[in-house]
Formats: sequence, structure tokens, C-alpha cells
Amino acid sequence: MPNINLKNLAKELGVSISTVSKSLKDSHEISTETKERVVAYAKKIGYSPNPYAGFLRHHKSKTIALIAPELNNNYFIQAISGAETVAQEKDYHLLIYCTNDDFQKEASILKDLTNGRVDGVLISLTSNTISYDHINNLINAGIPVVFFDRVCHEIETAKVTTDDFTSGFNATEHLIKKGCKNIAFISASENLSICNKRKQGYLEALAKNNILENPNRIIVCDSDETNNAQKIKDLFQSDIKTDAVFASIERLALTTYNVCNELNINIPKDKKIICFSNLRTAALLNPSLTTITQPAFEMGKQAAIILFKSLEKKKIKIFNENIILKSELIERNSTK
Amino acid sequence: MPNINLKNLAKELGVSISTVSKSLKDSHEISTETKERVVAYAKKIGYSPNPYAGFLRHHKSKTIALIAPELNNNYFIQAISGAETVAQEKDYHLLIYCTNDDFQKEASILKDLTNGRVDGVLISLTSNTISYDHINNLINAGIPVVFFDRVCHEIETAKVTTDDFTSGFNATEHLIKKGCKNIAFISASENLSICNKRKQGYLEALAKNNILENPNRIIVCDSDETNNAQKIKDLFQSDIKTDAVFASIERLALTTYNVCNELNINIPKDKKIICFSNLRTAALLNPSLTTITQPAFEMGKQAAIILFKSLEKKKIKIFNENIILKSELIERNSTK
Repeated sequence: MPNINLKNLAKELGVSISTVSKSLKDSHEISTETKERVVAYAKKIGYSPNPYAGFLRHHKSKTIALIAPELNNNYFIQAISGAETVAQEKDYHLLIYCTNDDFQKEASILKDLTNGRVDGVLISLTSNTISYDHINNLINAGIPVVFFDRVCHEIETAKVTTDDFTSGFNATEHLIKKGCKNIAFISASENLSICNKRKQGYLEALAKNNILENPNRIIVCDSDETNNAQKIKDLFQSDIKTDAVFASIERLALTTYNVCNELNINIPKDKKIICFSNLRTAALLNPSLTTITQPAFEMGKQAAIILFKSLEKKKIKIFNENIILKSELIERNSTK
Repeated sequence: MPNINLKNLAKELGVSISTVSKSLKDSHEISTETKERVVAYAKKIGYSPNPYAGFLRHHKSKTIALIAPELNNNYFIQAISGAETVAQEKDYHLLIYCTNDDFQKEASILKDLTNGRVDGVLISLTSNTISYDHINNLINAGIPVVFFDRVCHEIETAKVTTDDFTSGFNATEHLIKKGCKNIAFISASENLSICNKRKQGYLEALAKNNILENPNRIIVCDSDETNNAQKIKDLFQSDIKTDAVFASIERLALTTYNVCNELNINIPKDKKIICFSNLRTAALLNPSLTTITQPAFEMGKQAAIILFKSLEKKKIKIFNENIILKSELIERNSTK
């Protein structure tokens, strides 16, 4: 309820703003009866006092939040590092939240941030974020939001992504040029815009090269890696013709490596593998992993720069724009 | 200057607390002359108003900070995750700061936290933290501190570490049992207690097995990886007898792998490698890496539990104790 503030509360209760404020602070100046009435009503309508309100009137919280679906992922660590560089320059604090790819957790974190703990938010969505009220509420509460990587196109604000469609197309053409014809695509989610764009690129490259699309070779995974491993194993065992895997995100490539090891499948002889990844050890893997490497640091940095521009202009509504940075295909032994 | 507060300021200036408070808020109720005098004096003595003071009197900031020297390191990601679990349970926010292993940055972050932005701090020091005033100032300002992993024994509070000496001893004995006699130890810093304890374990294992210690085989690295790679290369080229490397921290093992690739040195035939690491891809490397794996998640969790115990008891001074958790040696192909 973004429009509940001390003023409205006072009006509803027929008392002064100062009485409401003092009641909520349990002041000795207010009678117990009044205090109880104010607190009960505030509780009833879900009013949560802004802990830093006094501070905000004069200064701002000097804090922004970055919300990521996972931290155990080099993409997000590098993006955080990029955002942190900007925050430091601006003498701001950076709160980092991890949703563990859980939509409920994402909603609860954002709800909590509406009270003014932060001045703005950088967010990369969970793979199961299917409604956006929690984001709209945050913006309505006066907290500007910038998306990076896992974005939501339904909300009008700035979004920093990489060229997912083109990179998906290039990754698939790379495999085709290496002689692969039965290429599987492993998606992290059907909801994520990045996965869908990467898949579109994959389908387009197949079509352009007159390769018939096979729906069995498109696997949708989630955050349960044991389950994902089983899905990939099932594919490899039911469809032995599969000669390549294009993994949409980093951890799915590692799961594919583990499955290949378990089933004694040789990479790249039996199956070639390419994936979106900022893995620091990509070159040291057995075999070294061909990656589409996102400009993660730059993406975090750009997202933060846009957010600070709006904070400096005291604008809550950020111009609806897509900033698209280029990823790089780095060929290594997994597609030799 | 932890003892400067509104009360003292008012006393020094010969005005009321309310006048100081209103002056610092640029209130129209106070004359310009008085405001200028108050602000100038506050500035002179370095008084930084506590932005959340009003909030703190009634609630607390409901935030703790975790300060890590690097984020691009699986140990710290897992430790953060452990601390976050506890913070969430307690309905607290977790601020994450990365010092990039820079002592000046660490000092500046801590200085900034003395103003009450957080209720407590979990910290793992940089490898060049050689004085501790910034930590003592924080504790004196009423913010309890718990160390994890990279600790400082000079300060009396709780420290959560792993069994560094024993693990260093076991790692070295593991290499000796595999037939190695000319084992190099690569330290991340001469200042870090964890590196020194791991080195002590290494030296003790050599002595126990009647192997003469060779000071040339003890290399001290820093955060400059190009420089570190050169140091390791110099060792391998000047002392070809070196038959094993014990790396004290994760990124130094990856640097050693890169150097071996560059010099066409076969791991494990020419040189065996073991290291402290929580690398997710350890088993997928070429060759898979033998690690001493720290209970990182548990260490972050324990550190947070101790901090919250003190917060709940409203105690700033935390009992001086060493909590030592066990690491695990996981044998893989790099020491076969």
C-alpha cells in the first residue's frame, strides 16, 4: 500500500500527524489509550513506518540494493562488482540480496524495501517470476528500479541485457559449422526473457541451415540440479543422435559435463558443448569449455549508472529503454 | 571519535541539544548565525550525525554487514550464503562489502559503519591488514565484530576459522605419501594468520618426514595475479626439482594450473597440486583438483549465530573465543 503515510493515517484517525508519529514511537507525551488506538489502526491497514524517514527528509538513505537470483555464478559476481564500482564512486552503500531463484523470496525482499531502506534497486529476476505487482509497488512507493540480464519487458524502465538473440544464433551456427546437426537446447526457464531469446536465436539458426527443429531436444530445467541432471541423462539415453548441447546458463553446462562423465560420453567427440558462461575456470576444464561470455561487469556498471542518473535528478520514473551490450563467443576444446 | 554525540556537542557549544539537532537539520527555527556555528564546530571535530539515530533509539537498524576481501571466490560466496540464512531467520538485512583485498578500502568501509548503519559486523580481513585501529574504533562505537577465516588474534572477540594448521599438515603429508619430496608452498600473504598456520603445518609435516625445508620453495604472493604467475614460473624454471605445489588459497592453484599449461608441465606426472579451495568445478578441471575444502557455509553461519547472540543480549563485547571447524581433504587426479 504505497500511499499510506503519516498524513493519511492522521486524517483517518482524526488526530494530528505529530500525535500519530509520537504514538508509533511510544512517546510518554501521548496517552496510552490514543497510542493503542493509533498502533492498532496502523497495524490493521498494514502501515509499516519508514525507519529512516527523518533521515530521508534531509539526506536519503545513501544505499541502493542489488537483487540477484544466485550468487554462486560468476556472471552475477562480476555484475555486482560493476555496480559496486559505481556505488563507491557515488559514495553509496550497496545492499546485496540473493533470492535463490525463489519468487516468493523476491516478492518478500521487495516488499520490505518499499519502506525507504534504499533509494533505488537493481534487479535480475528469478526464473519463476510470473507476476510483477511487487515491482510495480516498489516503483509506486518512489523507489526507481533498473533491470539487468533477467529482465521484465512488461515494466517501463531501463533494462540492461546482452544480445541474447544474436548470441543464441551465433552459438548454434558455431555448432552447425563444426558438423553438428542434432543440437539440444537446455533452457533454465520458460519464463525468462533471456532464455526465450537465446532459444529464438537457436531456432532461427536451425531454420536458416535447413535443420528441422525437434521439440524433444528442447529441455526446460529449473533450479533443482539433481532433477536437471536426470532430464539431460534421459535425453542422451533416449536420443543418442544428439551431437551437441547448447546450455542457456552456466550451471546447466556443468551439469551436462557431470552427466557426460557419468555416462562415459566423450566431449567433444561424442557431443560438443557450448554455453553462456563467465566461469573463471572455463579454460581449465576437461575439456576446456567454449563459452558465450557476457560483459557482466559492464552490465552491472551500466545498470548502476542509469539508476544514479535518475537518483541525481530525483526522478522515480526511469525512461523505458533497452541497453544491449555485446557478448563474445570464445571457442575452446568442448566444440573442437 | 565514538564519544562525540549531540549531548557533548551541545555542552561544548553552550546551547541546548535541541538547538544542535535542529541546526544540523537546517531547521528554519534556528538563526543562520547559530546554525553556521554549530555546523562549523561539528565539522571541525569530525562529528558525523547518525542517520538512523531516531530509528535506533526505538528499533535498531535490523542490518548486519559482512565484509569479504574478494567475492570471486567460492569460499566467500558459500560463507555469505551461510550468514544470509541466519540473517533471514532473524529478519535482518545483510549488507555485503568487498574490500578487493585493499586495506585502505577496509578501513574506509569500517569508518563509515561506525555511525550506526548496521548493528554488527562479520569480517574476513584483507591480506595486508597490519593495523587494527579501524576495527577497535568500530567496537568502541558499539558495533560488535565477529571474525571469520581471515582473522586477527590481537582483538578480543569471537573468531571462526578452520583447522588451518592440521589441514596444512595433512595436505603436505598427502603429497609426501604420493612420493613428493620437493614441495613448494605458495602463500597468499605473510600477514594472514590462515596462511601462516597453513605454512606451519607444511613445515611440521616436512620435519616429521625428515625433509629439509628449502626457503626458495616458499613463495609469498599477493593480489596481483600476473606478478604471482611470474613468481611461480620463476620457481619452476630455476628449481626444476620441485615436484609438488601446495597452494594456500584457491586462486593461486588456478594460477599454478595456468603456468603449468604455459610451460607444458604435466599435472600430476611432473608436478602434483593440492590447494585450499571450495571451487565448484574442482572435479571438472583438467586434471581434477585435489582440495582441502573448508566448511564455508557453516563458518559463515556460525559467525552470524555468534553475532546475533550478542545482539540479542545487547552485548557489544563478544567473548574471546576460537571456533575451529574441520576442513576435508578431497583426493582427485592432480595428486594421483
